[in-house]
Amino acid sequence: MARLIGVVGGMGTDAGIDLLKKIAGNTPAVKDQDHLPVIMISKPASILDRTEYLFGEVDVNPGFAISSVANELAKAGAELLAIPCNTAHVPEIIGIVENKLAPGMRIVNMIEEVGKYIADNFKVVKKVGILGTNGVYRSGVYDQYLYDYDIVTVYPNEVDQFGKVHPSVYDPFYGIKAVSNPVSDRSVADLLYVSEDLIERGAELIILGCTEIPLALTEDMVFGVPLIDANNVLAKALVRESSGSA
Amino acid sequence: MARLIGVVGGMGTDAGIDLLKKIAGNTPAVKDQDHLPVIMISKPASILDRTEYLFGEVDVNPGFAISSVANELAKAGAELLAIPCNTAHVPEIIGIVENKLAPGMRIVNMIEEVGKYIADNFKVVKKVGILGTNGVYRSGVYDQYLYDYDIVTVYPNEVDQFGKVHPSVYDPFYGIKAVSNPVSDRSVADLLYVSEDLIERGAELIILGCTEIPLALTEDMVFGVPLIDANNVLAKALVRESSGSA
Repeated sequence: MARLIGVVGGMGTDAGIDLLKKIAGNTPAVKDQDHLPVIMISKPASILDRTEYLFGEVDVNPGFAISSVANELAKAGAELLAIPCNTAHVPEIIGIVENKLAPGMRIVNMIEEVGKYIADNFKVVKKVGILGTNGVYRSGVYDQYLYDYDIVTVYPNEVDQFGKVHPSVYDPFYGIKAVSNPVSDRSVADLLYVSEDLIERGAELIILGCTEIPLALTEDMVFGVPLIDANNVLAKALVRESSGSA
Repeated sequence: MARLIGVVGGMGTDAGIDLLKKIAGNTPAVKDQDHLPVIMISKPASILDRTEYLFGEVDVNPGFAISSVANELAKAGAELLAIPCNTAHVPEIIGIVENKLAPGMRIVNMIEEVGKYIADNFKVVKKVGILGTNGVYRSGVYDQYLYDYDIVTVYPNEVDQFGKVHPSVYDPFYGIKAVSNPVSDRSVADLLYVSEDLIERGAELIILGCTEIPLALTEDMVFGVPLIDANNVLAKALVRESSGSA
């Protein structure tokens, strides 16, 4: 029997849906009945913005609302917990979910899986670029998992991070959270510009460390360098853990 | 407060995900918190194929498994029930869900909404073509809802239905349920061929009456005639009923 995958949706809504799509895409299936069991609860109004919390712009830690959804998922029988939001994996936030986790449920940690995935599949890579929200940028959440594999990180400079990368996701007029079908040209152009800079500064691979960014950078490579979609790595890990396949 | 939308996923998995995407696409939102609350439970292994049941190829009515998921959704607080599968709306199947529906939950009926949508938006249309599974074909489920609006239906001939339309969804090698990213050229070509025939026989509009077919026919029109995506009409109705907007 496959283990029931529980997904905390709504962070953002597109990223949750994108994860479901990638779980299905990574599952060998020729008929409906071959797909893995998944439950997603998306209650976006109740989950405050993760980056705003990390920057002190809102008071309540979104970890509490995420934890409450996680517990609803556990009550509905989910054994594996997926949180398709990189910023939510900052220890200050995910720590609350871990502390209140229902017995019998296990978090499949997206950032940890990305670390493993790079170590397994890109053995020569020693320096990776990170494109993420300001929350991911400031927290250095990726560094701790990549450190175990002797991989160092390179981030955009502050002007590019605050003026290009973060707004490409959050700008109310052209950011991916506001405009995703299709994504705005400006978001794509700004993310490409910063990717090129990361590569010039030595990045041998770029992690798309915000679940909205793969909606803008949809290819496997950029300027000859692999792009790692953290949401897709999480999907692969969920398929492996749910089905028991390797 | 927005009403919680409950989605029975897994019929197929792509159609459930497609509905979530269309709910998000029909919701005015500039930030995560603006999106509507949705819960989807997808337990595809437990829900037998709807068309196979209608043709006597499997014994157990899939309505029982759908109803059990509906009740799990109700237990998790869902007030509106969405079943993103046209064939599941055949009275023999959905009747079971209706009879066992939890108090406080209401089905937003996809076929009924398509009837209303055509009557409201295409007032001059009197004859519509139906592309669906063999189950939808044989049951005439669309006819009963369109009859109220004086709209008649035109279906593919049996050779095209059994040899082209149904296999475009179900064929284990090239059908949409097996190959959806991207859909096979053969599925697209066969569906276009039959669409043209329906138009020659008087269809002024074509209903994509299987939730997988819009993955193959992705435009709004075909040969100058509007295509109505039943899943998108259902999404619009869910947004209206959840948010209380018109």
